[in-house]
Amino acid sequence: MTDNAANSDSPAAGVATKTAADELVAGILKRDRRTIAKAVTVLESLSTEAPDLLQSLQPHLGNAIVVGLTGPPGAGKSTLVNALIRDLRKDHLRIGVIAVDPSSPISGGAILGDRIRMTAALDDDGVFVRSLSSRGYLGGLSPAAVRIIDALDAAAFDLILLETVGAGQNEIDVAEVADIRIVASAPGLGDDIQAMKSGLLEIADILVVNKADREGAERTLQQLKGALSIRSGRQSRVPVVKTSALNGEGIAELIAAIQSESAKVRAIDPLERRRRRARYLIARAAADLVAERIKSGGTGLIGKLADEVLSGKSSPSAAALRILDA
Amino acid sequence: MTDNAANSDSPAAGVATKTAADELVAGILKRDRRTIAKAVTVLESLSTEAPDLLQSLQPHLGNAIVVGLTGPPGAGKSTLVNALIRDLRKDHLRIGVIAVDPSSPISGGAILGDRIRMTAALDDDGVFVRSLSSRGYLGGLSPAAVRIIDALDAAAFDLILLETVGAGQNEIDVAEVADIRIVASAPGLGDDIQAMKSGLLEIADILVVNKADREGAERTLQQLKGALSIRSGRQSRVPVVKTSALNGEGIAELIAAIQSESAKVRAIDPLERRRRRARYLIARAAADLVAERIKSGGTGLIGKLADEVLSGKSSPSAAALRILDA
Repeated sequence: MTDNAANSDSPAAGVATKTAADELVAGILKRDRRTIAKAVTVLESLSTEAPDLLQSLQPHLGNAIVVGLTGPPGAGKSTLVNALIRDLRKDHLRIGVIAVDPSSPISGGAILGDRIRMTAALDDDGVFVRSLSSRGYLGGLSPAAVRIIDALDAAAFDLILLETVGAGQNEIDVAEVADIRIVASAPGLGDDIQAMKSGLLEIADILVVNKADREGAERTLQQLKGALSIRSGRQSRVPVVKTSALNGEGIAELIAAIQSESAKVRAIDPLERRRRRARYLIARAAADLVAERIKSGGTGLIGKLADEVLSGKSSPSAAALRILDA
Repeated sequence: MTDNAANSDSPAAGVATKTAADELVAGILKRDRRTIAKAVTVLESLSTEAPDLLQSLQPHLGNAIVVGLTGPPGAGKSTLVNALIRDLRKDHLRIGVIAVDPSSPISGGAILGDRIRMTAALDDDGVFVRSLSSRGYLGGLSPAAVRIIDALDAAAFDLILLETVGAGQNEIDVAEVADIRIVASAPGLGDDIQAMKSGLLEIADILVVNKADREGAERTLQQLKGALSIRSGRQSRVPVVKTSALNGEGIAELIAAIQSESAKVRAIDPLERRRRRARYLIARAAADLVAERIKSGGTGLIGKLADEVLSGKSSPSAAALRILDA
């Protein structure tokens, strides 16, 4: 577990990292761009100052709202992020962006390049963008993203956009970590609504049909609304917003929907929201540990249960329950 | 856990599913295409016959070799699978393909459509292709893929190609489940080798540089060979094969590499290989259970540890260890 590597051993190192952390926090509170970038790197790479930095950030947290933006490849999420930044900056809101690319370490570089070309706002101190690859972390949202939220929160970013490709575990993770969840789709992505019903709809606070200038947009919108209408409770009231991020259409409506959700989020104790993120980090670490132990365990109970699963006598879930209860 | 749903409750249901399972197995052993498709659907959807079917398949397993094929989007994995099928069929090998699309339930339909158009071999009884979406399973390789391996193994498929987009957890899963792991890349996919070094190289038994007709292919090949040369042990001897799947170049060399690896795999007890897959299924189920328990646990030890993680006093990994040890 790389997290352990961040604990420094000697008292001398402790003092040094404490001082370094305090300096970083001072710069962050002054909203100094270079210090923020440095702090984010410290939290991303879990260098030795990271635990002290996280601790020193504590008194300065709780203002930011984390907005998760997920959806399938091709939904135009990055363009949507750029359109949101442009319009939100008109209201002088400070916007942090954490973009997680889970598809492959290999494509990470290319995506980062695209992002830099696309984000015209990069010389604006009210905007901070960091792309993370999922390198070194085995699936799902990088825990680094959750740590970085704290640095951006302390640096007085009002909204932190957490952009991820909608891919299995990632969608679930965004649902856990974000305060508001936007799920973006677009016309022509394939066997769209039928499948979207079963997974992404569940986590959405706001649905977006992007690329609304394309053929089929109205059909996609009506299908989504139809799928929502047969749901009960909260889900039947999820707003569906049609956008064309490239030319700015619908972005004002999307921002209004985000603001409406933000009001609800503000009613929740910020500490509770942060605790949920901490539980998520612990849960992921524990899941990895348990999986590792079982996969490397060949004998005893695990070996016996593996044979029962092989012969169909036991299901993997039933076997897992017995191991956890043992 | 959907796995539990597969356990039938009444003795009457038990007899009925046993008979249904026996009929499926009889058809599978006769290599009847429609029965194989039906059995695969039973195992994919975990319908009531699934546990009996898995049990009845047991005496007929152990022949097939599972070849995992992974790599980033754009590496041309599907084209590679088609080229492999075409040439392997010349040797009368029976080929099963399980394609897992983790990117999104939404793109599942489109990818399936592409596959059907591409696989010219679909009217050949020696080839069976099934595309799975990751729908209903939260990240990583679908456990359904592991169950389906048994049906294809019993149906006397010699090689089972397990094709997945290389994406975080998925890569790791393929490494666990497959007997032979092929990692495909292609020139021009971005910040390629530097990143590939850190993740995909570790799991590869065979490396492929596909789209070798493209500019930069030789450079990519040399970089991969260079990266391997500084490694020790097994990894320094991983073969790197240049292919152009679209026009069939290099496929014979790739098949030779697969056959060389197959000989090593044949030396391992098939039961041991299957036990590793069972442990993997249990590990995934246990990891999900543990994560669920921790995320929903707000008080007591978990609540205390969440606060310690928030304040930087404890790392998520250290907290996870303490929960698991408690």
